[in-house]
Amino acid sequence: MSKKVPPDQNLKFECLVFDLYGTLFDLKSFARECDKLHKGRGEEILESVRQKQLEYVLTRSLVKKYRDYASITKSAIKYSLQKLKLAASEDRIEELFSAFLRLEPFDDVERALNDLDEIGIKVMLLSNGTQEMVDKLVEHARLSLLSEEAVSVEGSGAYKPDPKAYQHALNHLQIFEKQKIFYVSGNPWDVAGARAFGFEVGWVNRTKQSSFDDDFRDLTPNYEFQSLVEMKEMLLS
Amino acid sequence: MSKKVPPDQNLKFECLVFDLYGTLFDLKSFARECDKLHKGRGEEILESVRQKQLEYVLTRSLVKKYRDYASITKSAIKYSLQKLKLAASEDRIEELFSAFLRLEPFDDVERALNDLDEIGIKVMLLSNGTQEMVDKLVEHARLSLLSEEAVSVEGSGAYKPDPKAYQHALNHLQIFEKQKIFYVSGNPWDVAGARAFGFEVGWVNRTKQSSFDDDFRDLTPNYEFQSLVEMKEMLLS
Repeated sequence: MSKKVPPDQNLKFECLVFDLYGTLFDLKSFARECDKLHKGRGEEILESVRQKQLEYVLTRSLVKKYRDYASITKSAIKYSLQKLKLAASEDRIEELFSAFLRLEPFDDVERALNDLDEIGIKVMLLSNGTQEMVDKLVEHARLSLLSEEAVSVEGSGAYKPDPKAYQHALNHLQIFEKQKIFYVSGNPWDVAGARAFGFEVGWVNRTKQSSFDDDFRDLTPNYEFQSLVEMKEMLLS
Repeated sequence: MSKKVPPDQNLKFECLVFDLYGTLFDLKSFARECDKLHKGRGEEILESVRQKQLEYVLTRSLVKKYRDYASITKSAIKYSLQKLKLAASEDRIEELFSAFLRLEPFDDVERALNDLDEIGIKVMLLSNGTQEMVDKLVEHARLSLLSEEAVSVEGSGAYKPDPKAYQHALNHLQIFEKQKIFYVSGNPWDVAGARAFGFEVGWVNRTKQSSFDDDFRDLTPNYEFQSLVEMKEMLLS
């Protein structure tokens, strides 16, 4: 017997769109993989890789020179290993890149996706990763509920927080009212970008920041929560 | 007797445009000021502040929500102090911000500016800082040769590496051929942005990176040097 019920008529959103890295998937699992190869340096490598990925993505978006996210990620790994004076052979870079395809979802993800499915809310994933990176991650984590709606921005030729990347989600969903979307991210620059675009936005404060970034004071999230369980309760309250 | 000579007819550039932070001015002097207030944490604070400044500038440029660089810098300081679990009172933030107005120029700057002046090459400074921040720094460092040509991007309503910010330099100089400009920066994202815009670009590798960022392989500098002394020799060779 299906547990599905018709969508709650009180729900104001037609679809929840989730970010991937740092929102549904835990980058600390990348740091742990790094630790196996470079003992005690995993956190440092992770922090540098994330920073350089973002710098490359944002710079390339601004100067309109798109390059795929797998290549960007490998360059960010190479830069970080060199900066930290660690071995940066092609093999090592590929090894660490492959750890990016085996990230673990946060503990609350599977339950939240099931709950949303039962309520009847459509769910989509929008990631800066390439379609191949996204597919591999979703498959590895056995998140079958996401498999058909896990979308890379690459079709838009732009990266979040470029408005063109958020527009890509609307085009994919064939939804034309931005406020029908509830966009959820753990990354403040992504929250700010989605707000600037016009979505209603929830910030899942995974890193337990004491407050949302002061600089984005004109682009703050509509909702803030500590976990996706808390998010679901908030949506239904 | 003036030591000035007419511009060398063999020089291919009409003007040298310098970046400020990390190119002419040494951010390590900010770290040292931080160390006085937060012993042993200066480098960490600096690294976090620089990273967040860039993240805010790039994100705001992409979503077209301009905010002045003084405010961005204060927000980056606040974020960094909170993240590092250090006191982040308004007074402390102002104190560290004022250290940004007293940065020290690199050792080779005064000599390089004098040499370029003798050769007869026009020199300009183009900074993401506000005009007030730029003026205070140049005055504090007594770099009189720069005082009339130290320009903030704020008039353009955009930040480097947005093409509009580089265009601002051309408008200021009333030069209409991009290749008449030799643009010099210590920041790889700025080098990449200036190259994408169409300037000839020199990278002063202040941080002794083992190589230019792999990701910017299509936007590499035309010239690379370790110091401005080396740059001058290269220009005249």
